[in-house]
Amino acid sequence: MTGRDDSRDSRSQQANALWGGRFEAGPSAVMEAINASIDTDKRLAEQDIAGSIAHAEMLSAQGIISSADGAAIKRGLEQVRDEVRSGAMQWSKALEDVHMNVESRLKEIIGDPAGRLHTARSRNDQVATDFRLWMREACDRADAALAAYQAALVEQAAKHADTVMPGFTHLQTAQPISLGHHLLCWVEAAERDRGRFADAKKRLNESPLGAAALAGTAFPIDRDRTAKALGFNRAMGNSLDAVSSRDFALEVLSAAAITATHLSRFAEEIVLWTSRRFGFAKLSDAWSTGSSIMPQKRNPDAAELVRAKPGSIIGSLTQLLIVVKGLPLAYSKDLQEDKAPVFRALDDLELALAAMTGMAGDLTFNTEAMTEAAGEAYSDATDLADYVVRELGKPFRSAHHIAGTAVKLAESKGVPLSGLTLDDFRSVDPDIREDVFSVLSARASMESRTSYGGTAPVRVKEQVARWRARLQGATS
Amino acid sequence: MTGRDDSRDSRSQQANALWGGRFEAGPSAVMEAINASIDTDKRLAEQDIAGSIAHAEMLSAQGIISSADGAAIKRGLEQVRDEVRSGAMQWSKALEDVHMNVESRLKEIIGDPAGRLHTARSRNDQVATDFRLWMREACDRADAALAAYQAALVEQAAKHADTVMPGFTHLQTAQPISLGHHLLCWVEAAERDRGRFADAKKRLNESPLGAAALAGTAFPIDRDRTAKALGFNRAMGNSLDAVSSRDFALEVLSAAAITATHLSRFAEEIVLWTSRRFGFAKLSDAWSTGSSIMPQKRNPDAAELVRAKPGSIIGSLTQLLIVVKGLPLAYSKDLQEDKAPVFRALDDLELALAAMTGMAGDLTFNTEAMTEAAGEAYSDATDLADYVVRELGKPFRSAHHIAGTAVKLAESKGVPLSGLTLDDFRSVDPDIREDVFSVLSARASMESRTSYGGTAPVRVKEQVARWRARLQGATS
Amino acid sequence: MTGRDDSRDSRSQQANALWGGRFEAGPSAVMEAINASIDTDKRLAEQDIAGSIAHAEMLSAQGIISSADGAAIKRGLEQVRDEVRSGAMQWSKALEDVHMNVESRLKEIIGDPAGRLHTARSRNDQVATDFRLWMREACDRADAALAAYQAALVEQAAKHADTVMPGFTHLQTAQPISLGHHLLCWVEAAERDRGRFADAKKRLNESPLGAAALAGTAFPIDRDRTAKALGFNRAMGNSLDAVSSRDFALEVLSAAAITATHLSRFAEEIVLWTSRRFGFAKLSDAWSTGSSIMPQKRNPDAAELVRAKPGSIIGSLTQLLIVVKGLPLAYSKDLQEDKAPVFRALDDLELALAAMTGMAGDLTFNTEAMTEAAGEAYSDATDLADYVVRELGKPFRSAHHIAGTAVKLAESKGVPLSGLTLDDFRSVDPDIREDVFSVLSARASMESRTSYGGTAPVRVKEQVARWRARLQGATS
Amino acid sequence: MTGRDDSRDSRSQQANALWGGRFEAGPSAVMEAINASIDTDKRLAEQDIAGSIAHAEMLSAQGIISSADGAAIKRGLEQVRDEVRSGAMQWSKALEDVHMNVESRLKEIIGDPAGRLHTARSRNDQVATDFRLWMREACDRADAALAAYQAALVEQAAKHADTVMPGFTHLQTAQPISLGHHLLCWVEAAERDRGRFADAKKRLNESPLGAAALAGTAFPIDRDRTAKALGFNRAMGNSLDAVSSRDFALEVLSAAAITATHLSRFAEEIVLWTSRRFGFAKLSDAWSTGSSIMPQKRNPDAAELVRAKPGSIIGSLTQLLIVVKGLPLAYSKDLQEDKAPVFRALDDLELALAAMTGMAGDLTFNTEAMTEAAGEAYSDATDLADYVVRELGKPFRSAHHIAGTAVKLAESKGVPLSGLTLDDFRSVDPDIREDVFSVLSARASMESRTSYGGTAPVRVKEQVARWRARLQGATS
Repeated sequence: MTGRDDSRDSRSQQANALWGGRFEAGPSAVMEAINASIDTDKRLAEQDIAGSIAHAEMLSAQGIISSADGAAIKRGLEQVRDEVRSGAMQWSKALEDVHMNVESRLKEIIGDPAGRLHTARSRNDQVATDFRLWMREACDRADAALAAYQAALVEQAAKHADTVMPGFTHLQTAQPISLGHHLLCWVEAAERDRGRFADAKKRLNESPLGAAALAGTAFPIDRDRTAKALGFNRAMGNSLDAVSSRDFALEVLSAAAITATHLSRFAEEIVLWTSRRFGFAKLSDAWSTGSSIMPQKRNPDAAELVRAKPGSIIGSLTQLLIVVKGLPLAYSKDLQEDKAPVFRALDDLELALAAMTGMAGDLTFNTEAMTEAAGEAYSDATDLADYVVRELGKPFRSAHHIAGTAVKLAESKGVPLSGLTLDDFRSVDPDIREDVFSVLSARASMESRTSYGGTAPVRVKEQVARWRARLQGATS
Repeated sequence: MTGRDDSRDSRSQQANALWGGRFEAGPSAVMEAINASIDTDKRLAEQDIAGSIAHAEMLSAQGIISSADGAAIKRGLEQVRDEVRSGAMQWSKALEDVHMNVESRLKEIIGDPAGRLHTARSRNDQVATDFRLWMREACDRADAALAAYQAALVEQAAKHADTVMPGFTHLQTAQPISLGHHLLCWVEAAERDRGRFADAKKRLNESPLGAAALAGTAFPIDRDRTAKALGFNRAMGNSLDAVSSRDFALEVLSAAAITATHLSRFAEEIVLWTSRRFGFAKLSDAWSTGSSIMPQKRNPDAAELVRAKPGSIIGSLTQLLIVVKGLPLAYSKDLQEDKAPVFRALDDLELALAAMTGMAGDLTFNTEAMTEAAGEAYSDATDLADYVVRELGKPFRSAHHIAGTAVKLAESKGVPLSGLTLDDFRSVDPDIREDVFSVLSARASMESRTSYGGTAPVRVKEQVARWRARLQGATS
Repeated sequence: MTGRDDSRDSRSQQANALWGGRFEAGPSAVMEAINASIDTDKRLAEQDIAGSIAHAEMLSAQGIISSADGAAIKRGLEQVRDEVRSGAMQWSKALEDVHMNVESRLKEIIGDPAGRLHTARSRNDQVATDFRLWMREACDRADAALAAYQAALVEQAAKHADTVMPGFTHLQTAQPISLGHHLLCWVEAAERDRGRFADAKKRLNESPLGAAALAGTAFPIDRDRTAKALGFNRAMGNSLDAVSSRDFALEVLSAAAITATHLSRFAEEIVLWTSRRFGFAKLSDAWSTGSSIMPQKRNPDAAELVRAKPGSIIGSLTQLLIVVKGLPLAYSKDLQEDKAPVFRALDDLELALAAMTGMAGDLTFNTEAMTEAAGEAYSDATDLADYVVRELGKPFRSAHHIAGTAVKLAESKGVPLSGLTLDDFRSVDPDIREDVFSVLSARASMESRTSYGGTAPVRVKEQVARWRARLQGATS
Repeated sequence: MTGRDDSRDSRSQQANALWGGRFEAGPSAVMEAINASIDTDKRLAEQDIAGSIAHAEMLSAQGIISSADGAAIKRGLEQVRDEVRSGAMQWSKALEDVHMNVESRLKEIIGDPAGRLHTARSRNDQVATDFRLWMREACDRADAALAAYQAALVEQAAKHADTVMPGFTHLQTAQPISLGHHLLCWVEAAERDRGRFADAKKRLNESPLGAAALAGTAFPIDRDRTAKALGFNRAMGNSLDAVSSRDFALEVLSAAAITATHLSRFAEEIVLWTSRRFGFAKLSDAWSTGSSIMPQKRNPDAAELVRAKPGSIIGSLTQLLIVVKGLPLAYSKDLQEDKAPVFRALDDLELALAAMTGMAGDLTFNTEAMTEAAGEAYSDATDLADYVVRELGKPFRSAHHIAGTAVKLAESKGVPLSGLTLDDFRSVDPDIREDVFSVLSARASMESRTSYGGTAPVRVKEQVARWRARLQGATS
C-alpha cells in the first residue's frame, strides 16, 4: 500500500523529468492546481489510447519505429485501457494530464519502448485528436437520445390526435388545437436538433493527428492511415488549424444550447399543465417529488430542472466562445479550458433528454379539462370571422371586425358565441345565417383546420405515420 | 404637407381599427414605445411584400379571392415596394410593424380589396416567413463575404509560401513556419464557417406561410404553391412549429459568433504583428488611424474593432437564446425581440469581414524581421531532438532530454544551437555527428516538415493551388 | 444648401487634418464605417461640452491658456450646446466622433483659440470623463424609475393586504398568502436593485480628466478643480487606470441585468395571472393589445416584452465583459465598443421599468378567483402539520407524516381537509381534537403566519407603512 | 463495513419516508440523477449545521421545543460537524441534499428529537440561509486574496517606480511611462473589485431563516435571535423574498466576473512581456512549464489560464442570470442550479488570484529592454508638441501638426527625434530653439508628467506610500 504511494511520488518526479530538464525548481502548489487538467481530461482516456494505438501502428508500418516496439506499445496500451476500464488505473495530478498519465503507466509496463510512442506527434495534436473522437461519440449519443425523445412524443401524439386542447398565443386562449399536434411540434424541433448534431459531426470528423506541435513533422508519417484507422473522413489540411481550432467544440455546444432551449420550452409547459390552475396533466410519482413541509405537493422537479438547463449549457457555450476569442496561433494554454464546459454541457443535455423522454411518455392528460378549456374565451372567434369571409364573401378585415363585435355582445351577455341567438348575430351583421352555429365549437374548429401542417386530426395522424416511419428507419 | 401629417394621423386611427374593435382606451405612450417594432422590422419590407404577393396569387389561384382582387393586390403591393425602394414610404409607429404599415398603405392605394389579403394567414406566419427569407439572403451574403476573405488570404499565402516566420505556441517562439502556411490556417477556418452558414440556410429554407395564427386554416390554401413561389424547399409540417420556432435564427447567430471568434484571432495577430515590438507587418494608411496627441502613431483600429466584435455577436446570440428559453407554445410577444439581435450581429459580421478582407490584402510583411525572429529562442530544438531519433535511433523521450541539455549549454554560452561546436554536442551525447548542423536553421527546419498539412513550402503551394481551384469554382 | 454640403466636405478634410499630417491616403469606406462612432456617441454631446468647459476654465485659471481664449472657448461651447439641444448641430461621420465634431464646430465659431482647448488632454481621458458623467445620470434615472415602480407596488399592496391568494412553490399551490405580501416581495427586490445602482454611482464618480493620453501631462493642470467643477468626488489616482478601465460600465450593466431578471419574474406572473386558466388579474386596454386574427384576445404584450428584456440586457453585459477581457493597457480601440451596449441596456431598462410601473398600478385583481384558488389543493396541509406539533406536541417529522396521510384520505374521498370528519382525522391520529377545524381554511392559514416577514395581513400592513415612509423620504 | 452499506440503504428508505408518505413508486434512476444535489451542496455542510444549531437554540429559548430536545439536537449536530470535518460523514445520494443528509445522520445519533428540528422552517429558508453564510465567507476570502495581490503589485511597483517602459495605446508605443505606474494601475482596479465584494457582502448579509416554505410561520419564533446568532445584520422583511431571491448570488458573480476581466488583462500583459519579441520580463521556473516536444520553451501557462478564466466566470454569471429569468414566486426547483455556478466561479477566481499574486511577485524585469523600447517609435513626439505649446505659445492643434511633420522628417532620415539637427527642426518651425533637445528622451518624458495621477516617479512613489498605508491598515 505504502509502496503504491511511493510509486506515485516516483512517477511524479518522473513526470517532471518529461519536460523538466531545464527547470530547477518544481511548480508550486498553486501552479499545479491551476495547471493540472487530469481531473477533467481523464475522461478522454479511451480516446487517447485509441489514438496512440493508431499512431504506434502507423509509426511501425512506416518503419519509424521497429515492429517489436510497435507491438510492445500496442500491448502495453491495451493493458492500460483494461486498467482504466476496471478502475485500477491510478491517476496522478503531478503527471498533469491524461496523455502523460497514460504514457507514464505505459512506461511502467513496457519500459523503454514507451519513449518511442511520442515520435512525430505532440500533446497538441494528440489532445485535438482525443477531443474530436470524444465529440463524435457525443454527437451520436445526442442523436440517439433525441430519437428516443421523439419516439416518446410521437406515441403520445398518436394517442391524442383527437384530443382537443386550447392553443395559446401570449398564453391567452387562441384557437382549439389537437394535443397530438402540439406534441408533434416538439418532434419537429428535435429533428432539426438532430440535423445540427449530424452536421457538426460531419464537419468535425477530420484527423488532426500528425500535425505535431504546430508545423507538421519531418518524419515520413502516413496521416491518411491514422485518419482511416480512427474512423476520420480525412486528415486535416493545415497543421496550425489542426492544433488551434476549437470551432468544432463550439458548434456542438451551439447545437446543445439550441436543443436545451427547446427542451426548456416543453418543460415550462409541463410545469404549467401540471399546475393546479391548468390541471391539464399529471406526472406519476416516478417523475414528481414531495415537499418537506407541504405533504400534498407533487412537484414537477425534473421539468423545472430541465427548464433551468439552458443556463448551464448556454453558460458553457459562452465560456468557450470567450476563451477562444482573440487567441493568436497556434496552441495556447487557454485552450485547456475547452473540455470542462463541453463535458458539463453534454452531460447536462443527456440528462435533460433522458428526463424529458421519461416525462413525455409518463404524462397522463386530463382530456376533459383540456376540452373544456379549449372552448373558453371565445376561442371560436376566428372561426366566426372565417365563416363571414367564406360564406358571406366579405373581406377578412371586415369579418374580423364583425367577429370582434359579436364577441363583445356575447361577453356582455355572459355567454359563449354559441350562446348568442341568430337575432343577436343579425344585430351584428344582418347577413349571418343559421349555419353559423355549425362552426361554433372547439372540436369543429379543430377539425376544420385541414391545411397541410394544420391541427385537424386527419393531418395529425398523417404526421404521426410519417414520424413513425422516419424513426423506425432511424433505429433499424 | 399638412395633408401628409393628417393622413398619418388617420392611418394611426385606422391602425387601431385593425384590432381595436373591442378596446376603448388607446395604448399609452410607454406601451407604444415598448410595443412598436417598426424601427427594426421595416428592414423586412422587401421580404414582407414578396410574401404577400405569393400569398395573394395563391388565394386567387385557389379561388379564395377573386382574380380581380388578386391582381389589384399584386399591383398595389408592387407600388408599395417601389415606394419603399425610393424612400417615399412613410412609416408610422402607430401602425406598429412592417406588416400593418404595408397593408395600410396598400389600402390607401387599392381600397377595399386590401382587406382580403390577410385571409387565411396571420402576422405570426407572416413574420416567420419574412424573417426566414431575410435570413436566407443573409447566409448568402455571409458566404460571399467569407469567400472574398479567403481569396485575399490565399493570394497573400501564395506570395509568402517561402517566407519563414516563427510559429508560436503560448506566444513563445516554437518552430519556424511558413507565413503562407499561417495565413492558410484562417482559410481553413473560414471554409468551415461557410459550411455552417450553408447548413443553416438549408435547414431554415422551409415555408411557415399558411400556418396562420398557430393552427393552420380551414380555407383551401395551397402551401406548396407559396413555398415554391418564394424559393423554399418545402412547406413546414407543423403549424405550431412554423410560428413558434426561432432555432433557425439561433443557428445563424451561432455560425456568426463562431466566425467572429476566428476573425478576432487573426485581428489579434495583426495587432501584434504591427506593434513595434513584433515589427512583422505594416498596414497602409487606408487601414490605420492616427492619434489626436501622438503624431507618430499608426493605430490598427480596424483590427482592434474586429477583435472586439465577438462581444456584440456573442451578446446577440446570448440574447436570443435567453429570449426563447422557457417560452410555451405558440407565439409569444417575446419573440418580437428576435430581429434586433440578428440584424445587429449580421451587420457587425459583414463589416468585420469586409475589414478583414481589406486588411488581409493590405498587409505588407517585414520578411527580414520575420526570418530573424524565426531563428531565435532555439526554435530548432525540436529538429535536434528529431535528428537524434531519426539518425541515432534513440527513443523520442531521450532525444527530447538530449536536446534540452544542448539548449541549456548553448544558452549558457550565449549562442544559438548552430553556434555550438561538435565537441559541445558530443559532450551532451557522444553519438552526435557532424551532419547535425544541417538541421540547425530556421529555413531547413521549415522545409523539412513535409508531412501532409505541414509547413514545408512544397506543401503550402499545393494547398494554395487547391484553394484557388476551390474558390474559382465557388465564384465562377 | 449646397454650401452646407460643401462645408461638411471641408470639415471632413479638416477632420483628417487633425491627425492626418503623416497620412497620404484617406481611409476607405469600410474603414469609415467600422471606425466612426458618431452615430452612437453623439449622445454624449452634453457631457462632452460640460467636460470641455470645465477643462477650459481650469486651463485659463492655471495660466496655461489666456483668459481671453478661455472665455472664447466657453462662449463657443455654449453655442455648440445650444445647437445640439435645438437640433441645429450637423453631425459628420468623417469627423468620426462626438469630440471631433464638437471641436470642429467650435473652430468654425471661434476660430484659432479652439485649437488650444485640447491642451493637456486627449480623447482618451475626454471620452472616459463623458461616459462617467453620462453613467452617473443614468444611475440617478434608474433609481428614480425604481422608486416609482416601488410606489406603484406599495399602493397595490396596501389595497390587497387582506386579499388571500395561493402562494406557489414549483407553481404548485403551496400555502395561502396575502396578495399584498406577494407584491411587496418585488418592492424588496427593487430596493436592493437601487442599492446596487447607488453603489455603482458612488464608485464611478471619480474624474479621469487630466490623465491625458495615458500618462498624465507636464502642463501644470489642476485636476481637483475640474473634478469638483464636474461634480466628481475626486480625481483618479492613476492615469493608466483612468483611460483604460471600464469596470464602472460593467458594474452598472450588472445592476441593470439583475434588475431585469426581477422585472422578468414579475412580468411572468402577470402573463400567468392574466391567462384564462389563472384568471387572477386583468390589464386594462392601455396595457393590452389585440390580435390581427382573434378578436377576443387581450394580450399582455408589454409584460411579455419585459419578460424578454433580460435577453437584451444580459447580452449587453456579456458583450462588454467579452470586449474588455484580455486587453492590455492602456487604451485600445476595442473600448469604443463600450457605449452601444450600455445605451441599449439602459434604454431597455428604463422602458421596462416604465412599463412595469404602469402595469403594477393598472392591474385589477379577481379576488374571488384568488381566494378560491388559495383554498385548493390542500394548501392547509402545513397548518394541519403545525397543529399536530403545536397542540399535540409531536415532532414535526411525525406531524408531517400525519398530515400527508390525512391529505391522502381526503383526496380519496374527494373532499378538502375541512371536509373530513373528526372520526376521519382520528383514524389518522387518535389525538386530533375538534379544534383542528379552526386551522383548516385559507384565510385562517394566512392570518396565522405572524412571524416577522410573514404573510399575515397585520405584518403586511406594517411593511406597507414602512415602505411608504421610506419612499416618501426618498422623493421629498 | 457491510453494516455501513446496509445502513445507507436503510437511510435511503428513510429519506423517501421524509416526504414520501403519499408516493407509491420510487423515483427512477434518471430522476435521482437530475434531482440530487448532494454532490454539490455538501459543501454547505458547515453552514447548514451552524444554521440548524442557531435555529434549535431559538426554538428551545422560545419554548417551541423542550430544552432537553434543544440540547440533544445541538450536541448531535456538533457530532455531525465533527464527522464532516474528519471525513467520516457518509453522504447518500438517495437523501438528495445536504439538509436531509445532516438531519438523517442526526436522527441516527440522537433519535426522535431530531424530528423536532425542522419545526417552523423549511428547506427553502434553510438553503437560502446556508448559501448566504457561504457567500459571506466567500466575499471575505475574495477580499483577502485581492489584498494579497495588491500587496505583491505594490512591492514590485516600489522597486520599479524609476524604471522606464513604453506606455502603449493600441499596442503601439505611445509615451514612456514608469513600470511602477503601470503596475499600480492594477492595484487601483483591484481596490474597486474589493469595494464590489464588500458592497455585495453588506447587501446579502440578511437572514432568511424563519421564512419557512414561503409564507412565514404561526410558531412564535424569534427571527432576530437567529439572525444575530449567525452574524446577519437583520432578518429579511418579506418571507417570499427570503426564499426566492438569488440576486445576492448574481451580485457576487458579477463582482467575480469583473475581477476576472482585470486579471485577464494583466495576464495578457504577462504573456506579451515574457514573449521573445517583447522580452520585457521573465517568470521563474515555479511559474512556467516546458513543452513535451520543444525543450527550450518556458511557457507562461498560469498566465494563459488566468487569461481564460473570464470564460468560466462570465459563463457562470450568465448561467445563473438565465436560470432566474422569468421564474414566478416563490421557490422553484430551477433555483437548485444556483450553487454549482457560484462554487465554480469563486473557486476559479480564488485560484486565479493566487496565481496572479504569485506571478506579480515572481516577475523579474529586463529593465534594459524596457528602457530601450521606451525610446522607440518617436514616443517623445507628444513631448515635442507640448514643448511647442508651452515654450512657443502655439495652439495645441498647430503644435500637434508641427510634431507630426518633425516625425516624418526624422523617419525619412532614419533617426530618432533627438537625432535631428536644430536646423532640421527649424525647417519644420523656425521658432524652435536649442532647448528642444531637453525634452527629447524617454526618461525626461516620463519624469515630466507630474500631474496628479501621472507617471512621473515622484508621483508613483507617493502612490506606493499611500497604498502601503492602506494595505497595512487592511491587514493589521
